[in-house]
Amino acid sequence: VNAAAADDTRPPGGDAALPSLHDVRAAARRIHGLVHRTPVLRSRSVDAFSEAEVHLKAEHLQRIGAFKARGAANAVACLDHAVAAAGVAAHSSGNHAAALALAARGRGIPCWVVMPADAPRTKVAATRDLGAEVVHCEPTLAAREATLAEVLDRTGATEVHPYDDVRVVAGAGTAALELWEDVPSLDAVVVPVGGGGLMSGTAVALAGLSPGTEVWVAEPAGADDAARSRAEGRLVPQTGPDTIADGLRTSLAPRTFRALTELVTGVVTVSEDGIVDAMELLWSRTKQVVEPSGAVGVAALADGRFAGRSVGVVLTGGNVDLDTAASLFAR
Amino acid sequence: VNAAAADDTRPPGGDAALPSLHDVRAAARRIHGLVHRTPVLRSRSVDAFSEAEVHLKAEHLQRIGAFKARGAANAVACLDHAVAAAGVAAHSSGNHAAALALAARGRGIPCWVVMPADAPRTKVAATRDLGAEVVHCEPTLAAREATLAEVLDRTGATEVHPYDDVRVVAGAGTAALELWEDVPSLDAVVVPVGGGGLMSGTAVALAGLSPGTEVWVAEPAGADDAARSRAEGRLVPQTGPDTIADGLRTSLAPRTFRALTELVTGVVTVSEDGIVDAMELLWSRTKQVVEPSGAVGVAALADGRFAGRSVGVVLTGGNVDLDTAASLFAR
Repeated sequence: VNAAAADDTRPPGGDAALPSLHDVRAAARRIHGLVHRTPVLRSRSVDAFSEAEVHLKAEHLQRIGAFKARGAANAVACLDHAVAAAGVAAHSSGNHAAALALAARGRGIPCWVVMPADAPRTKVAATRDLGAEVVHCEPTLAAREATLAEVLDRTGATEVHPYDDVRVVAGAGTAALELWEDVPSLDAVVVPVGGGGLMSGTAVALAGLSPGTEVWVAEPAGADDAARSRAEGRLVPQTGPDTIADGLRTSLAPRTFRALTELVTGVVTVSEDGIVDAMELLWSRTKQVVEPSGAVGVAALADGRFAGRSVGVVLTGGNVDLDTAASLFAR
Repeated sequence: VNAAAADDTRPPGGDAALPSLHDVRAAARRIHGLVHRTPVLRSRSVDAFSEAEVHLKAEHLQRIGAFKARGAANAVACLDHAVAAAGVAAHSSGNHAAALALAARGRGIPCWVVMPADAPRTKVAATRDLGAEVVHCEPTLAAREATLAEVLDRTGATEVHPYDDVRVVAGAGTAALELWEDVPSLDAVVVPVGGGGLMSGTAVALAGLSPGTEVWVAEPAGADDAARSRAEGRLVPQTGPDTIADGLRTSLAPRTFRALTELVTGVVTVSEDGIVDAMELLWSRTKQVVEPSGAVGVAALADGRFAGRSVGVVLTGGNVDLDTAASLFAR
């Protein structure tokens, strides 16, 4: 399934360009020391829940508490000096905001982040603490894009998109590269899909490293644009997402849709209850604070579909307002 | 301060007997494979909070989610075959219950645990899931002791006390042994104190391994029997404890009081708000679910008293009802 992209396949250009495994390896060298090499966790309880041998890539222990640190670090490191000096900007409801702030601070350049009014407080605070200027806007895609355009125009900063960017996708793929280095013989890897950056980076990396490893993506039923896009054979934008997984409410982009159709084995859709079940399992048994979006990969194992197999799951992030999580557990 | 117990010092017998470093090393060999060797975690956020270099011994990632697995495993492994066959019993409001159940299951012997009606649900469920018979009683020490006496009489089981037991103390000390193996040059180690098993095991181990390392204990102001006992020079029992740290409400025993006076550098008392602050730091920044008692060691660092020094802190456990924790964070 994953044989399409080999190490020597260079991506075509344009909006549908994907990085190659070579790009992922280059990203790994570039961001070495800027982000953590996260551990791979094992848990008897998660194995029992899944009836599988589960290897949890702990990106909630990544810097800024999410895998997004990888893509932002790579994108910022790739900028020419003159371009970088003017700073970087993005709109983001969450982890990409803090990731870009961290990367900018590391390079000593300014950073602006447009965040919707309903972004989790913990993510807004983290972004500000890292020295970025947070520009608030209404929680609509139109408002986010208009506000960002105004910021870019005013500052001359370079936009770093949270997922529709070859450098960001290559950076995201470094998590799968590390997972493969630690556990080379996985039958399958499961990652959550929102905009598709992690999906694309993971699929590209594993297609080259381990073509026999299946790549599955998981998403909430309330934001199932990947499943619908795959079923219809065209990019179906996500409208009106309804899910607690705040990191997975976004639409695919042409380049990530291409990874979905060419490199991904299948899509698993999970319920809101299933997400809370997975969070509760992770918090209470593995003692790991994983945000709703971050637990979606584990939620996808609940029906035993990977029984008897070895599965890698990326816990993508751990940034959640604790009182919000509390209200979920009080259901 | 810690020079009193050297490797070749055998403890005197009786109620005030403490294990030696030799006993701790023997316990480590005995429980190898029965419990986890837990990692030592580092966190920029905890370092900044403490103005110190903090090494977190992650016993919340221990089997049954608490260091108590060590002492129970050692005590049960020490029993003669004929004695073991009749089973083991204890009264416990929490982690010792599950620890003893795990140890008994591992040896294939029956286990009874007397638990007060107000024990955290997660701890009761864990104990039952491990095959122990849970006997409920009123939440008073008198009721716990009377009910346990009845169980012992009826079953012929052997009592394994949660801390007033040389084998349990030696087992608890193996956490400090591992911490020292991983980070040999600590200026100080801080552990929470309830009944004093972990304190005693830690103090005995470090006195032999690293006499220059200070051993501090931390306790809630609402259960400050260690501070009062030390101040008065006699064992002051804990009456009417008032703290969210459910694992630290118990009284010292003569043997653990002896460790407190002979081997411990000092006592730090922390407020309830300080405990929640420490929990919030650990949950939100390190992404680790640590129970109130388990966060008391970190709470003791808040006033900067260890500034500029390297400090080991034992995160003793992670078993907390998630909705209870939630209500704490909603303050």
